[in-house]
Amino acid sequence: MEKVSYTYHACQKKLFAIDDALYAIGGKWKLKIIIAIRDGHIRFNDLQRTLGISAKMLSQELKDLELNGFLERRVHTGTPVVVEYMVTEYSDSLDDILRALSDWGENHRDKIKSERS
Amino acid sequence: MEKVSYTYHACQKKLFAIDDALYAIGGKWKLKIIIAIRDGHIRFNDLQRTLGISAKMLSQELKDLELNGFLERRVHTGTPVVVEYMVTEYSDSLDDILRALSDWGENHRDKIKSERS
Repeated sequence: MEKVSYTYHACQKKLFAIDDALYAIGGKWKLKIIIAIRDGHIRFNDLQRTLGISAKMLSQELKDLELNGFLERRVHTGTPVVVEYMVTEYSDSLDDILRALSDWGENHRDKIKSERS
Repeated sequence: MEKVSYTYHACQKKLFAIDDALYAIGGKWKLKIIIAIRDGHIRFNDLQRTLGISAKMLSQELKDLELNGFLERRVHTGTPVVVEYMVTEYSDSLDDILRALSDWGENHRDKIKSERS
């Protein structure tokens, strides 16, 4: 019985942690927005083009990412007003996840390709 | 110019890889289903209870995961028929992602807790 209840607890704990992660950075866009900003696409229109995301969705996702401390929004007053997005230091904490996902994605694509040929 | 186009290429390549990964394992449930099955919740009703997912959604997600080679479905004939799910060896390729997500999720929760207190 001890072992079962330990396993149950460990599983639930992991599930909660994954939940927290997916809540903050899950979905189709958040990680991709962070990657694109890091790679220099720091203005709204440039981000929109690079990612192929609707303006409404991009605007919402940027707000969420800012609220969660991954991005900073800088407004340069002038004519025209220029708005730029920067990643914060906290976004570096996502490095392991980004590396793991992109490595896996590449391998998965290779696997599917080789299965088809 | 050379540098810009290299950066652009590297960024797009990473975005594609992340896309591939999110396409196969993104969304609210897939990774959680894999974790739960690994931890011994191998029957439909048990999975449903453990995850708090609707039967319709669970059924669809299990099909997707099977198609993508992460799960195997075993049917034991008899009365009643028993259906069990097993993770495949290929699902082990997700280990780095799962570890990265669950570590990050735990730290993120701690961060949010400490900011609130």
